[in-house]
Amino acid sequence: MSRTDLAALIKEQQAAYADLQARGLKLDLTRGKPSSAQLDLSDELLNLPRGFKDGSGTDVRNYGGLAGLTELREMFAELLWVEPEQVVAGGNSSLTMMRDCLIYLLLFGARDGDRAWGKEDTIKFICPVPGYDRHFTLLESLGIEMVTVPMHDDGPDAEAVAALVKADRSIKGMWIVPTYANPAGSICSQEVAARLASMETAAHDFKIFWDNAYALHHLTEEEAKSADILTLAAAAGHPDRPIMFASTSKITFAGAGVAFLAASEANVAWYLGHLGKGSIGPDKVNHLRHVQFFGSAQGVRDHMAKHREIIAPKFAEVDRVLSERLGGYDVATWNKPQGGYFVNLDVVPGTASRVVALAKEAGIALTPAGSSFPYGDDPDDANIRLAPTMPPLEEVTAAMEAVATCVLLAAAEQAQGD
Amino acid sequence: MSRTDLAALIKEQQAAYADLQARGLKLDLTRGKPSSAQLDLSDELLNLPRGFKDGSGTDVRNYGGLAGLTELREMFAELLWVEPEQVVAGGNSSLTMMRDCLIYLLLFGARDGDRAWGKEDTIKFICPVPGYDRHFTLLESLGIEMVTVPMHDDGPDAEAVAALVKADRSIKGMWIVPTYANPAGSICSQEVAARLASMETAAHDFKIFWDNAYALHHLTEEEAKSADILTLAAAAGHPDRPIMFASTSKITFAGAGVAFLAASEANVAWYLGHLGKGSIGPDKVNHLRHVQFFGSAQGVRDHMAKHREIIAPKFAEVDRVLSERLGGYDVATWNKPQGGYFVNLDVVPGTASRVVALAKEAGIALTPAGSSFPYGDDPDDANIRLAPTMPPLEEVTAAMEAVATCVLLAAAEQAQGD
Repeated sequence: MSRTDLAALIKEQQAAYADLQARGLKLDLTRGKPSSAQLDLSDELLNLPRGFKDGSGTDVRNYGGLAGLTELREMFAELLWVEPEQVVAGGNSSLTMMRDCLIYLLLFGARDGDRAWGKEDTIKFICPVPGYDRHFTLLESLGIEMVTVPMHDDGPDAEAVAALVKADRSIKGMWIVPTYANPAGSICSQEVAARLASMETAAHDFKIFWDNAYALHHLTEEEAKSADILTLAAAAGHPDRPIMFASTSKITFAGAGVAFLAASEANVAWYLGHLGKGSIGPDKVNHLRHVQFFGSAQGVRDHMAKHREIIAPKFAEVDRVLSERLGGYDVATWNKPQGGYFVNLDVVPGTASRVVALAKEAGIALTPAGSSFPYGDDPDDANIRLAPTMPPLEEVTAAMEAVATCVLLAAAEQAQGD
Repeated sequence: MSRTDLAALIKEQQAAYADLQARGLKLDLTRGKPSSAQLDLSDELLNLPRGFKDGSGTDVRNYGGLAGLTELREMFAELLWVEPEQVVAGGNSSLTMMRDCLIYLLLFGARDGDRAWGKEDTIKFICPVPGYDRHFTLLESLGIEMVTVPMHDDGPDAEAVAALVKADRSIKGMWIVPTYANPAGSICSQEVAARLASMETAAHDFKIFWDNAYALHHLTEEEAKSADILTLAAAAGHPDRPIMFASTSKITFAGAGVAFLAASEANVAWYLGHLGKGSIGPDKVNHLRHVQFFGSAQGVRDHMAKHREIIAPKFAEVDRVLSERLGGYDVATWNKPQGGYFVNLDVVPGTASRVVALAKEAGIALTPAGSSFPYGDDPDDANIRLAPTMPPLEEVTAAMEAVATCVLLAAAEQAQGD
């Protein structure tokens, strides 16, 4: 672009940005929250359960039942492609289950380990990037160091992971969102999963935290099937390596759903053994509520189709606006996710922070630049996570128009500065 | 008693015990669980909440609100005699909140401390005995050593506690059930509470885990008011010393209630800061359900009166049977609790295990002897915890008749052996 064209572009985008500021918008694309319309899909839960006994006649109102209601474990075992005995139905947060597992590992050690992880001088986790900010915050809070590897379309760079874990026994685990990853939308292939399940690790109690948060959250009719990590790991002689997490937070109510952990039966026993010291059992009334609401595993799948109808148009709108506004310039790339809750936007290196700051001043809240990297540090300052599910469609349009303006303005500013 | 009388007594009790075995009973007095009739009192919860917004218009179905619903915090602040800002409404288990606090202290340290407790060679807690077995199991699982002090009618032996904490900086905390203690039924007096709040401690980040599980669980119209430990501690210059716990587990549904933590605002900020790393917020739908069900703090008090109507006759029956069957012999003492969930039975030293074993063989499950002591070790083998709330009244009668027989037989056996 010539300096004249560039000057014209800047002027144009500055004018567009001034218009934007004048509109006094107040929009929020920060978090992957379901919208009211999505939450409404589950309002029948507010009138459930009918009765208070599960299939075996247990009174769900009372204490006990640490592993959760059998019917619910069976339902989600089918959905997660595992056995009911491998599933624990817990409270309202899979993040809490992840944290509890990390804490048990730090304080007590893995069932296939020699000693508590906390006894080691250094503990590291491999984090594919971009990734989920709360995973990173959690590790940081526990003093677990993070080593990054690139996230590809078929999952984490398995060869990079394999080389790291073979060489360094302080690397005790890795995080992965296998299906419709946050934020890149990647789907971990069978091959990558098999490599992770079978790779040689210097730490023989290495753990894969398999956060299948979006296992059922398809945005198209082409529904990805998550790799069967428990079977792959067992077949490779590492049955206790993966611990899977999932929840209904983005299926029923975000704050009042049910979270799940799935792992080898030995790992489940390990988890429940520690959990039982500080729990009186999960909220089984909420378990029964969910069992009755869904009816069956197919009921869950049918329910997810209703979510898709609500949110797929928002993702399409993100792509439409970005394509129309940015397609003519070489200033950004973004993905068209087949599922999950995010669009991963990569802008001109060095401008992501500026884009987020410009958007903020115009009333559009975006996730802070760098959030998808450990310690909030995106070395390229290029990555922005967009979360379009929560606002109504017209606000998604307005917000994306604004984001496009900010991306262009920041890119033009940088080009001028060069 | 002469040898002839003793022989006659043994014969008589052996016959009674044979009769007992022949009845093929299957009764359970092990745990402090509410009965079905008590749970029925809260069945309206199964059809709540109406709507999904709290008083400020927040959609309780979505993520967020780490400290819990404002209205519920206000309601229980009134009931626990603290300020709403000092209260956190959490998940379904106060035991989990206690464990989380212990884990935060071990991994991160207290807000008024220098470093993580886990960095110390040894950490000890003072445990008044008899006490709550799950407190002890939790400490043991975390490698925290236990030092016992006697529990008196007015609470823990405050002078014994004060002497210990002054001399030993590895003593970092103590446990207390201040109101209708498990299992002794003691009520911590204002004086004892004030002493604990103000005593000099070698560890300046000493914590009182004030587990007010039975704050509202009166068995008579003479309702004990718990000492105001937060105010006492603040007045004594130790605002961050106490952390209070409570729950509705024995108010609404045992497994699907709401747990509470109350502490100084600084401690609340400390707790939420750590909690937020691994939580997406509590189940606010269940919070709203409870707000609507109770209506007000007075609604909770009124509700507790209904519990009393159901369970007070069971406690009266325990006392009646024990008095009638054991009153003529010098073989046992027990308390008549004014609240809570337990009767504390002390039998002839050296016979508690035998009594529990005899009862078990006759089909009556009692809490294992020694359960109310750290490591399950009752040095006198004299203490048995009776939990009469769960079985219907006629089963309480049958169970207590059986227990009386076992107490007498075990005492007679021992006398014969001497």
